[in-house]
Amino acid sequence: MMESQRPLILVANDDGITAPGIRALVKVMNTLGDVIVVAPDGPQSGMGHAITIEGILRCDKVTISKGPQQEYSCSGTPVDCVKLAMNQIVPRKPDLIVSGINHGSNSSINVLYSGTMSAAVEGALEGIPSVGFSMLDYSWDADFSAAEPYIKRIAQEVLAKGLPDGVCLNVNIPKVSEEPYKGIKVCRQARANWVEEFDARKDPRERSYYWLTGRFENFDRGQDTDEWALENNYLSMVPISIDMTSHDQLSNLNGWKL
Amino acid sequence: MMESQRPLILVANDDGITAPGIRALVKVMNTLGDVIVVAPDGPQSGMGHAITIEGILRCDKVTISKGPQQEYSCSGTPVDCVKLAMNQIVPRKPDLIVSGINHGSNSSINVLYSGTMSAAVEGALEGIPSVGFSMLDYSWDADFSAAEPYIKRIAQEVLAKGLPDGVCLNVNIPKVSEEPYKGIKVCRQARANWVEEFDARKDPRERSYYWLTGRFENFDRGQDTDEWALENNYLSMVPISIDMTSHDQLSNLNGWKL
Repeated sequence: MMESQRPLILVANDDGITAPGIRALVKVMNTLGDVIVVAPDGPQSGMGHAITIEGILRCDKVTISKGPQQEYSCSGTPVDCVKLAMNQIVPRKPDLIVSGINHGSNSSINVLYSGTMSAAVEGALEGIPSVGFSMLDYSWDADFSAAEPYIKRIAQEVLAKGLPDGVCLNVNIPKVSEEPYKGIKVCRQARANWVEEFDARKDPRERSYYWLTGRFENFDRGQDTDEWALENNYLSMVPISIDMTSHDQLSNLNGWKL
Repeated sequence: MMESQRPLILVANDDGITAPGIRALVKVMNTLGDVIVVAPDGPQSGMGHAITIEGILRCDKVTISKGPQQEYSCSGTPVDCVKLAMNQIVPRKPDLIVSGINHGSNSSINVLYSGTMSAAVEGALEGIPSVGFSMLDYSWDADFSAAEPYIKRIAQEVLAKGLPDGVCLNVNIPKVSEEPYKGIKVCRQARANWVEEFDARKDPRERSYYWLTGRFENFDRGQDTDEWALENNYLSMVPISIDMTSHDQLSNLNGWKL
């Protein structure tokens, strides 16, 4: 069999393989290369960089929507999907890994909680140019059409230029409004937080339980942040480093008496 | 009731509330302040920064070992434990959050996968000085005694000086050997990787399944890394930033035509 000259693109997400967001992403990627989808068999939002250690993983070839892409449904987390794809499924090193389109924001500190972004971070760990895409619209009926040309342009640029070692991209897309998007802004991650985070209840046997809830609060007033860009109808693009070292603090800590 | 003048210290981990590692950490922290333990009811290794969104959380007061500490066993992930503790359990903002002592290394890129470190990162997100401790010994019988004076000293220093906003510490401790520890080295996170990561098997019904496995490979030869420190019998201390922005790359990306 002749090997394809087109780029090989691996697609993952955290909302599950049937989510409309990943369908939109597959559609765009099919125009750019040979696509392999390896995505969770159900919702894996908020799984962060979790991996499956205590249990086993399943991964089955499936057909979810029409198209030239190959698809695999995996029982694990988004990071498991990327690891399994890289080790067991792809015929060669992918040229690009894309994750999403997430139904909901992964801006600011949400990069830490996001399974979508962790799939991209895992791609960067494995030395593959990787991008996570998220839209600020939790609805299953979110309208991705206005975002598609931007997603295509970013993917083309990453395919052409690559990304530096250990860096992936966190792209967030405003919810569609009457106004067209103003463009893409390169940003830093805003310093924000979640507050008021639990709803305490009693079960029918009067035992306490809790639902995680909360309100996202951005107390970073910088105009160079992803939050600012999104509030102003720009797509935000944050370069994310797998090196979590606070290099600024190395000399400070060296001054400690330990 | 008179409020204690001692520091309030929150203790979490990812190996579960009964793990010897957290018992050793509680013992040290009892000498420094009033201790509240909120830890998972079972193993949560490799959970990264996962949070529980789809299901509920339980959190029950328990007594695991003798001592003045208060203890709560929680059904969620390490990050859930810290969030729930902060919102529902602590009487005031803790002065310090410590996580561990993990049974096994969380050096280098393992900071991304580690539930132990994610509990510390969550502490930093909530503005509390936070430290994760891990020992390079997976054994349930790991010997933590030689590490305890170092852990105490680091905790004392953090209580005295605090940590900069958005930064926590990732402390790894060599496995005990005949040689005493050489001291503590402030380091950056090594650029390493996991390779060969799945064991593919057939179940009794001939269906494929996979175990995540693999070998950690450090290809970073720098002598300023945590891996170097640990190989040379130093404790490694890496300042970890919750800001994952690759600030170096902002200007590079701004040069893209998008």
